[in-house]
Amino acid sequence: MRRKNDQDDISALVYAINHIHPLGDDIVAYLQANCFFTTCKRGKHLLKTGEICRTLYFIRTGALRGYIKENTRDITTWISIDNELVTSISSFDLQVTAIENIQALEDCDLIGISYNNLQKLYLKFPEYNIVARKVYQSYYRDAENRALIARLTNAENKYLYFLRMHSHLANRVPLKYIASFLGITLETLSRVRKKLSISDAG
Amino acid sequence: MRRKNDQDDISALVYAINHIHPLGDDIVAYLQANCFFTTCKRGKHLLKTGEICRTLYFIRTGALRGYIKENTRDITTWISIDNELVTSISSFDLQVTAIENIQALEDCDLIGISYNNLQKLYLKFPEYNIVARKVYQSYYRDAENRALIARLTNAENKYLYFLRMHSHLANRVPLKYIASFLGITLETLSRVRKKLSISDAG
Repeated sequence: MRRKNDQDDISALVYAINHIHPLGDDIVAYLQANCFFTTCKRGKHLLKTGEICRTLYFIRTGALRGYIKENTRDITTWISIDNELVTSISSFDLQVTAIENIQALEDCDLIGISYNNLQKLYLKFPEYNIVARKVYQSYYRDAENRALIARLTNAENKYLYFLRMHSHLANRVPLKYIASFLGITLETLSRVRKKLSISDAG
Repeated sequence: MRRKNDQDDISALVYAINHIHPLGDDIVAYLQANCFFTTCKRGKHLLKTGEICRTLYFIRTGALRGYIKENTRDITTWISIDNELVTSISSFDLQVTAIENIQALEDCDLIGISYNNLQKLYLKFPEYNIVARKVYQSYYRDAENRALIARLTNAENKYLYFLRMHSHLANRVPLKYIASFLGITLETLSRVRKKLSISDAG
């Protein structure tokens, strides 16, 4: 956390939430007073396995991934970029130790709100539950889509479904993380991309 | 849908929701007036790919699974039993055609509410958004856990994580659906279960 300055405003967060459900001025004022601003350099971690996630983050700019370790293997579970919310949901909601890690894939500029200040927001402004219900609905659908990609077995099907659901990531994030997210090797991903680009051209 | 009778009451639904967040009497009365009762025989479908899911179901008794088809392969994406809510979330929320199928694994006794009546509930009783926010939070965490199981590569790790998160299903649902849910063969699942039961005994 760092001291607020003139560049610190929550307008990107308010804009993103308004897109889901319009926020009242009183809620915007509460967020302005209770959010904090922070950064995370590429490669650094926001959260590591075994820690309790105390913050819900909004990405003003940057990219982050969630990942787990299975023995020595590193498995990317999600990738989020500008204007998305990130946290380790089970750890944050239940305030228990996290299974996953959260790592910056680019230098990130973030807005955070603590667990306690979010609970106060729910109590002080019950209508914020409408916003949160819609946000959770949307993120729940995304989680189902991520699970579906993970369950497909054919590499081309996986990548096609990824393009359908996450096309904004295809040319933004290093391919090794996309391959890990899809549960295929980098070589297989390259082969699939090459094949599909030839099909497109044809 | 069938005519209501004396056996038709929503007490199991109310009890399950109250466990998450207490419901006001006015909301209970609305649910009583607007829910309907239905059944689904083992093997039959509540929803098929390409249909629009118009109903959110609560399972009074029974078991259902979600599954997708990849070419000729049938992949179980979730399994739900008594006292859980089921729907095809993307299809229901956005009222678009479903990717998945929903099939009864046992004879099911269900309570349903239509998409339209649920939207009216949100509008008529804004405090129901508190309930729904908490329900979605809980189902979002479950979806993340399902995705995590799908991403693990080691069969024993998958089954151990399944037991940790879904132990109530282990002796309820035919093993072929658990194997499909874990993304492993029935033979591998039997081998893992045998190994773990020997470890337990030792």
